[in-house]
Amino acid sequence: MDFPDHPVIAVIGAGAVGSYYAGRLAQHGSSVHFLFRSDYAAVRRDGLTVRSCDGDFSLPVDSIGVYDDPRKMPPADLVIVALKATANDQYEPLISPLLHDHSAILTLQNGLGNEDRLAELFGAGRILGGLAFVCINRVGPGIIYHQAEGLIRLGEFGGGASPRAASIAALFNRSNVRCQVLDSLLHGRWQKLVWNIPFNGLGACMDLDTRQLLNSAEGSALIEQIMREVIAIAAAGGVTLSDSLIESMLTQTREMGAYRSSMQIDRHEGRPMEVDAILGEPLRAADRAAVPAPLLRMLYRLALIADRRETRDALAI
Amino acid sequence: MDFPDHPVIAVIGAGAVGSYYAGRLAQHGSSVHFLFRSDYAAVRRDGLTVRSCDGDFSLPVDSIGVYDDPRKMPPADLVIVALKATANDQYEPLISPLLHDHSAILTLQNGLGNEDRLAELFGAGRILGGLAFVCINRVGPGIIYHQAEGLIRLGEFGGGASPRAASIAALFNRSNVRCQVLDSLLHGRWQKLVWNIPFNGLGACMDLDTRQLLNSAEGSALIEQIMREVIAIAAAGGVTLSDSLIESMLTQTREMGAYRSSMQIDRHEGRPMEVDAILGEPLRAADRAAVPAPLLRMLYRLALIADRRETRDALAI
Repeated sequence: MDFPDHPVIAVIGAGAVGSYYAGRLAQHGSSVHFLFRSDYAAVRRDGLTVRSCDGDFSLPVDSIGVYDDPRKMPPADLVIVALKATANDQYEPLISPLLHDHSAILTLQNGLGNEDRLAELFGAGRILGGLAFVCINRVGPGIIYHQAEGLIRLGEFGGGASPRAASIAALFNRSNVRCQVLDSLLHGRWQKLVWNIPFNGLGACMDLDTRQLLNSAEGSALIEQIMREVIAIAAAGGVTLSDSLIESMLTQTREMGAYRSSMQIDRHEGRPMEVDAILGEPLRAADRAAVPAPLLRMLYRLALIADRRETRDALAI
Repeated sequence: MDFPDHPVIAVIGAGAVGSYYAGRLAQHGSSVHFLFRSDYAAVRRDGLTVRSCDGDFSLPVDSIGVYDDPRKMPPADLVIVALKATANDQYEPLISPLLHDHSAILTLQNGLGNEDRLAELFGAGRILGGLAFVCINRVGPGIIYHQAEGLIRLGEFGGGASPRAASIAALFNRSNVRCQVLDSLLHGRWQKLVWNIPFNGLGACMDLDTRQLLNSAEGSALIEQIMREVIAIAAAGGVTLSDSLIESMLTQTREMGAYRSSMQIDRHEGRPMEVDAILGEPLRAADRAAVPAPLLRMLYRLALIADRRETRDALAI
């Protein structure tokens, strides 16, 4: 069945990323239904406000669907999943009420393993994944600040391009969000992991931003070695990434200046870190392929220690 | 030559540890000469003040020698070295003016390699080393707060016990400082490293205190594995430590509650960390003995990154 021209859209996990992207779709005429948690009351009262480098906009309550329970939401042609990956055990109760026979599910979450888990639960044929390259924060209840970037690269879980992926990308592009279709979603995911694993991992475990990590010769060398390790793991899974990626990522990151990764920020704020999606799943991929991954393994162990859920729990005893 | 009953004593690096121990000796009648750096003017004016769990005391200026230049100090029978190990490149200019033919040098510094370096510079026959088990802080210029513990375990660089080591231990014991002579200084050093390497290393690199590190199963497991690695390195160097040490250290550390290691505090305060003495030298010992030390190696690399000297320097550029 063709993907509809005017899909009904649901957003699960309407934090900064979910609210922004789905908000753009609603701004440009799509019918969008948002599932909120903590911000439900505020959005119900004041609507959604987005301050954006690509143009501010507001969505009054009567222009969107605002919900606190997925069972009250209508079936959707497209379910956008923007949960934090630490909440993936909520997939089933949050998503299943929204599905009809042909619903597609697009996850914009970080890391590896999200599409696999969604495919297990809801069938591989429904699933697409997207990488969001965006600097965005929630600055208050129902208030989003979109600081920079914004590109989405998406593709089918089972490969990459498809008429459906092209339709969704076209919908984003019509809605002031630059969107590309990937030839291989898996390739895109691993490419992003080459950056995310060292900078999120070391950044969170050591509490250092990108500039502090790259300042010393030892820091640059370690990041480069971790990146090589990730490229080798990807290669064992059939995903070929060029070594030249490393130099270009390091150059780009140096030009960015001091940047705190999402995982470093999570640790700072005492929030659960996306340890499994960003470090655990790639490590399990290495183990399945019998690729040695001593640096990633150590990072994963350090991140499990740093993840404040356990520290907080134990301190509370 | 016998060690004199009433030695002239010099203290190099009169921070908290040096000021406290040498202060006790002065309090009990020894002739002690202190080399200060930043606190020179304050001590010259107000003397040295020690608040101690073993009894407060003050040393007026006219009861001790107070200097800012080792070339103004008299030759000493015993030079106590309490410099931070990051200042070991200052050994020669600071210590050589104090030596006569029979001067002994006792280093109370952290980590490995201090005695070796002193022996290279001044002759192995002069050198003794001591481990200070003490919780102590400088709380103001010339003001020391001794919170808990205080035991010194010392021995000859060339082995352990000797009449000279016994004399120095007796001097401390007469001066309200509990002091034991080690059968093997090297054994004592490695035993302390079994604790220092994981708790200083992980503590500083991850900015976690002992309780936070031990809270999670992953944290305890990693610390135990690092300890096993250190015991294996020691064994390759002829120092036998029992595996039961691990369980007793972990139990003791759990009972201590939340404790921030010196290296974690240094990182917090933006001061140079004793990376080489505590991590680098033990790693070089592993490499010389061809013992695999993947965890220590990774810790060393992380500590070099965390060591703020480079971060500060690079930020200043």
